[in-house]
Amino acid sequence: MSLRKKLHIIIFEADTKAGKFFDVSLLVAICLSILSVMLESVNYIEEEYGYYLRRLEWGFTILFTIEYVLRLLIINKPLKYAFSFMGMVDFLAILPTYISLFFAGTQSLLIIRTVRLLRVFRIFKLAHFVGEGKMIIDALRASRAKLTVFLGSILTLVVILGTVMYLVEGGENGFTSIPRSIYWAIVTLTTVGYGDIAPQTVLGQTIASVIMVLGYSIIAVPTGIVTSALTRKELTQVNTHSCPHCSEEGHDEDADFCKYCGGEL
Amino acid sequence: MSLRKKLHIIIFEADTKAGKFFDVSLLVAICLSILSVMLESVNYIEEEYGYYLRRLEWGFTILFTIEYVLRLLIINKPLKYAFSFMGMVDFLAILPTYISLFFAGTQSLLIIRTVRLLRVFRIFKLAHFVGEGKMIIDALRASRAKLTVFLGSILTLVVILGTVMYLVEGGENGFTSIPRSIYWAIVTLTTVGYGDIAPQTVLGQTIASVIMVLGYSIIAVPTGIVTSALTRKELTQVNTHSCPHCSEEGHDEDADFCKYCGGEL
Amino acid sequence: MSLRKKLHIIIFEADTKAGKFFDVSLLVAICLSILSVMLESVNYIEEEYGYYLRRLEWGFTILFTIEYVLRLLIINKPLKYAFSFMGMVDFLAILPTYISLFFAGTQSLLIIRTVRLLRVFRIFKLAHFVGEGKMIIDALRASRAKLTVFLGSILTLVVILGTVMYLVEGGENGFTSIPRSIYWAIVTLTTVGYGDIAPQTVLGQTIASVIMVLGYSIIAVPTGIVTSALTRKELTQVNTHSCPHCSEEGHDEDADFCKYCGGEL
Amino acid sequence: MSLRKKLHIIIFEADTKAGKFFDVSLLVAICLSILSVMLESVNYIEEEYGYYLRRLEWGFTILFTIEYVLRLLIINKPLKYAFSFMGMVDFLAILPTYISLFFAGTQSLLIIRTVRLLRVFRIFKLAHFVGEGKMIIDALRASRAKLTVFLGSILTLVVILGTVMYLVEGGENGFTSIPRSIYWAIVTLTTVGYGDIAPQTVLGQTIASVIMVLGYSIIAVPTGIVTSALTRKELTQVNTHSCPHCSEEGHDEDADFCKYCGGEL
Repeated sequence: MSLRKKLHIIIFEADTKAGKFFDVSLLVAICLSILSVMLESVNYIEEEYGYYLRRLEWGFTILFTIEYVLRLLIINKPLKYAFSFMGMVDFLAILPTYISLFFAGTQSLLIIRTVRLLRVFRIFKLAHFVGEGKMIIDALRASRAKLTVFLGSILTLVVILGTVMYLVEGGENGFTSIPRSIYWAIVTLTTVGYGDIAPQTVLGQTIASVIMVLGYSIIAVPTGIVTSALTRKELTQVNTHSCPHCSEEGHDEDADFCKYCGGEL
Repeated sequence: MSLRKKLHIIIFEADTKAGKFFDVSLLVAICLSILSVMLESVNYIEEEYGYYLRRLEWGFTILFTIEYVLRLLIINKPLKYAFSFMGMVDFLAILPTYISLFFAGTQSLLIIRTVRLLRVFRIFKLAHFVGEGKMIIDALRASRAKLTVFLGSILTLVVILGTVMYLVEGGENGFTSIPRSIYWAIVTLTTVGYGDIAPQTVLGQTIASVIMVLGYSIIAVPTGIVTSALTRKELTQVNTHSCPHCSEEGHDEDADFCKYCGGEL
Repeated sequence: MSLRKKLHIIIFEADTKAGKFFDVSLLVAICLSILSVMLESVNYIEEEYGYYLRRLEWGFTILFTIEYVLRLLIINKPLKYAFSFMGMVDFLAILPTYISLFFAGTQSLLIIRTVRLLRVFRIFKLAHFVGEGKMIIDALRASRAKLTVFLGSILTLVVILGTVMYLVEGGENGFTSIPRSIYWAIVTLTTVGYGDIAPQTVLGQTIASVIMVLGYSIIAVPTGIVTSALTRKELTQVNTHSCPHCSEEGHDEDADFCKYCGGEL
Repeated sequence: MSLRKKLHIIIFEADTKAGKFFDVSLLVAICLSILSVMLESVNYIEEEYGYYLRRLEWGFTILFTIEYVLRLLIINKPLKYAFSFMGMVDFLAILPTYISLFFAGTQSLLIIRTVRLLRVFRIFKLAHFVGEGKMIIDALRASRAKLTVFLGSILTLVVILGTVMYLVEGGENGFTSIPRSIYWAIVTLTTVGYGDIAPQTVLGQTIASVIMVLGYSIIAVPTGIVTSALTRKELTQVNTHSCPHCSEEGHDEDADFCKYCGGEL
């Protein structure tokens, strides 16, 4: 086996020991690099350890650059990878540190740096979870239309209720504009309830109560949609293998013999 | 094909390209008109751009008036449309701007203006979503009685718990009256939790804890109701085959004979 | 038909027109009487309309007394009714006003008065909702053991997490005692989140985040329990009537003919 | 029957009257001991009744020591018990009081004391609930992979959204660092909503609204996962019939032949 093929298996597959080791260590490196970005944002840590954190950042950037170049060299269709979503993220994750060499100004730099956080999604490359993740996404995709209708109704409701509350409570109670009132309606309907804006009048509190009970009840709708989609997905995921003797279907995944005629599967 | 028929297809149907284009642009116009009303409510935007926003409003009003008149001219039963819910909303959406010509006083006008927001519901006219929306509404309708019982129990619970808290905490801790205490109980049971009113005594906090755990647990009930209704709807949804003898629908997948007239399917 | 039998049908049944009318007007009277108690608790309303509200209260008390006496006279087993839950509530609902004649002191009286609010539950006597309410209660009863295990785990979790937070945050951040910390843990786990007590230290906020994600996720458990119980209840509620011709089962509730052989049911 | 065997039945089984009595009284003792620890943490109770509470604590410690020694003497494999999770908890629950004899310093002691609270889990030894608890745990275990994917996505989302909000709102609005912003994102996504940190800018409130609606909707995912797992568990739970040939269990209701060895059932 050529070195290129060996590296391909290590970097892109997760079936071998070496491949698994590579994936997990990459994951650890990504998490550590995110952690260092997070720590740098804390004032008193930045002041004391800022120098080391920036060093660490360069270390991670070089590490990820090597990884990115290796991927480009080893894969069969480098262009397809480079323009895939994961490839773009891989590239954007190493870019900001290099740009910082030519352009100063940490503020604008930070904005691009956050893209690196998307790399955590690489965790799902771990073979074990792909199937499960796919099932969830499939269930969500199957109920996409229903969820859109639901979200549309929620948005309409929130706009109307927010406007009504703007008229009822008015600016002196914190409902200073329709957008702000809609923000409050969302905070209330989703049962988040910050409490930074709260109705003061009796009528306002009555309407607020209705919104709360509504929000409390209609959470049942998306739940019902996703649950029934997932249940259907799970129930239809059964083995569609038919018995070679009696051609009956519906055997369990772990069945060795037909449950209807006793013949070997 | 006459012009009237052509326009009918464009305005009322969404199957053709022109019809789809009309529906989507109408939708965009509605959203923009709502947005302009919303922006007008923000103080500093109103001060600076109020003049242009009112111009824009007149533009949208004239546009929607043309649309409304066209609908009345083209449809076969104009009266039925005019007195349907959607027809009334269409009419009320253009009324307030014209009224503002004769009567000053923006405050009272604004109240009627909010009705225009209901037009967003027109989004569901888009053919694609009608079926999905109908299914959700059907599931909710099928579980209407159960949901009423549930909401009735919640309301009773909230009234009793609110009264108990009024007696336990009293006015000095913010529970100044039974209605206010009931408002607090709703805020707590629905897990919104503003924090504008919060129990201070040990007994009050104990009762509040019970209410929270209750609210946290009984959310399971409406969810269970809607989910099982939706699951049932989805499982029985398939067969839309109508009986050739009595043309009734809703037969099971394995039915060989009509369950209403006994004729062969 | 004797007067007693007629009255029995009106008061205890809801099938006839008169019976339905009686039930609904009683319901309205109960709601109004609760409303008057609620309004009496609002300071400025009590000051202005207190006199009329107390009059109204006497009116309702006399009305409910007549109703209670009628029930005792008309029912076949008056003692059984008097000691049933509904009978006791009916009695306790009229008691406090009479007691107020002999003993002054509104404070202590108010406590008993709240029992009257339980009468709203009479709403469920309305024949239509009994079946639906029974189904919900059956589903909850069937999953009683599971829900107890769930609530027990929640309580243990909350006690442990509350104690940990008491040690981590300490009195200066509002976590002044273990019971108060447990109260906070309940507020957080149930996603109510008043904000009257909130963690200030980094470790405390980290633990709080874990509690929130836990609370957000394990809501799925009671929902799952109730939903699967309800689904099972609904699925097994199908008609168990078998066809007299081919003896097949599983017909829909509204089926007039067998769907397998076409014979009349 | 020897005394040892008798005691074994009483202490380790819950089938006999004496065994049930032992279990319930032990449970009461545990709860009381936890209650006394909790009360000791309340300042004004500690000041007044601290002396008695410490006495009580010693009483419970001696009681639990006797119980622990008895368990060690009676069980057949004392080492296996001593190193089991329950055995370790039993030991750690009595340790801190004895350590307090040699080392002063209540602060450090309290930390170990909280472990005692874990003993409440003994409640699930009660035979009645074991099956139900096992079913919930089985359902959670079956959906472990799905829940991990879900929690991983949530964590990633929260890190990204927290970083974005840190950039949008900045330190002056309370979003002083990325970790703190992530804490806020968790508080918002889980719909807890303390309100100690709340977005002030228009863009921040818009993003916050998106997070809320997201949090409100994706709660449906874990609920769907657990519900469909529980439903499947309940539906396949019935048949505990084991094959007479290979004694494997878990056959479907309609199985005529063993799916593992092909023998007739």
